[in-house]
Amino acid sequence: MLSSKVLKGPVYALHRQLAFHTSTLQTSKVAVVLSGCGVYDGTEIHEASAVLVHLSRSGSDVEMFAPDIQQMHVVNHTKGEPMEPNRNVLEESARIARGKVSALSDLDPKNYDAVIFPGGFGAAKNLSTFAVDGTDMKVNPDVEKTLKAFHASNKPIGLCCISPVLAARVINGCEVTVGSDQDEGGKWPYAGTASAIQSMGAKHIKRNVTECHVDSKNKIVTTPGYMCDTDLHHIFDGIGNMVKNVFSLIK
Amino acid sequence: MLSSKVLKGPVYALHRQLAFHTSTLQTSKVAVVLSGCGVYDGTEIHEASAVLVHLSRSGSDVEMFAPDIQQMHVVNHTKGEPMEPNRNVLEESARIARGKVSALSDLDPKNYDAVIFPGGFGAAKNLSTFAVDGTDMKVNPDVEKTLKAFHASNKPIGLCCISPVLAARVINGCEVTVGSDQDEGGKWPYAGTASAIQSMGAKHIKRNVTECHVDSKNKIVTTPGYMCDTDLHHIFDGIGNMVKNVFSLIK
Repeated sequence: MLSSKVLKGPVYALHRQLAFHTSTLQTSKVAVVLSGCGVYDGTEIHEASAVLVHLSRSGSDVEMFAPDIQQMHVVNHTKGEPMEPNRNVLEESARIARGKVSALSDLDPKNYDAVIFPGGFGAAKNLSTFAVDGTDMKVNPDVEKTLKAFHASNKPIGLCCISPVLAARVINGCEVTVGSDQDEGGKWPYAGTASAIQSMGAKHIKRNVTECHVDSKNKIVTTPGYMCDTDLHHIFDGIGNMVKNVFSLIK
Repeated sequence: MLSSKVLKGPVYALHRQLAFHTSTLQTSKVAVVLSGCGVYDGTEIHEASAVLVHLSRSGSDVEMFAPDIQQMHVVNHTKGEPMEPNRNVLEESARIARGKVSALSDLDPKNYDAVIFPGGFGAAKNLSTFAVDGTDMKVNPDVEKTLKAFHASNKPIGLCCISPVLAARVINGCEVTVGSDQDEGGKWPYAGTASAIQSMGAKHIKRNVTECHVDSKNKIVTTPGYMCDTDLHHIFDGIGNMVKNVFSLIK
């Protein structure tokens, strides 16, 4: 199907030149952990993009990571139903990262000032088993190692949408928000997540979508993202708040 | 591989509730045309997200469309190389649209005030054959019909990154920008596109990445996007300018 013209043409050859440009005047290095590409089986695309826009504006040096594993499953996003064949989390995350993404097992926390996890079902399907197991969830070993290492080093951790369940499971007694514990007429369709967080021994703090919660003791910053059924720019602004507060916690 | 717990569980059931929320107080209706999901074989994710953030903030009512066709090919974004099996443009676009996307053949221009095309290689591979055929490019019939219908109705058309080649081919003698016609030390890795645009009978106007060009006569607004090798927030701001100028041209 592919002609040599396509493979060798000037446009194709330039594929590898595209990436996230990084400035030479960086003050902070931030790792972003992805879980695929698409809300129903991977990273929520607009949450990831918002994180990256705000990090870009802050002048930070960003590197992206994802586990080099198969997805829990692939969802046909037009139907909300599973489809075959399966896909690789790292390869799909590279769509968001414009090719520049490394295996999460290679993330050395020593090299970064903070870590941020966007949301999407990938956090509950590929980074953990929350979507299937609820409060009995298991966390991917490299995700757990990453969270514990940043926490132990007193470096800030930012999470949004469903990703705060990862911190709730791994970091004992931390405070996080996933928005509200009440449905509020459909505004918070995943409101039950708040009680799951409480059941896992963490404390859920109610926050609106443009806000974030800062657990100063544990240096964990969380914002609801698409846990709230609202317009995209509100989610963009909430993530901006999360990123800003992550920076204020960097030593 | 999928347990019934996954298929029937509360998290899975909520897949279909997620979408882009649309307000009831809209003033303008805007169609956004996608070409897949991922810079190397589909829509550039961050350009699409920027378009949607700015449209969301404007309070407009957005609907997304994509051709229901197979992609030219699938690119493994970690390697920049083709992979199998192929994917469907509409299904992959649904990852950006959070499920809410319609076949482009169903787009009735009468129902919209403007149309916007984000960039990415999908515009040059799936919406047209520019990546393979250069100035001999063909344009997907539904894309051509859409562009001609909005143009004939004097409704604004916004395009970014490589998408302006679509207007250059379809709308005779229009003015567009893809940034610069000079490489400028790697800042504009696709600078050759400007001369291709001139060869197709359109006029290329030099603009920086945070700017846009407004062809007032044809109501075509273009901005360079990732034609420029720069930080994401500059691309975000350029697209904001494009969206703002599209709105100023809506009657």
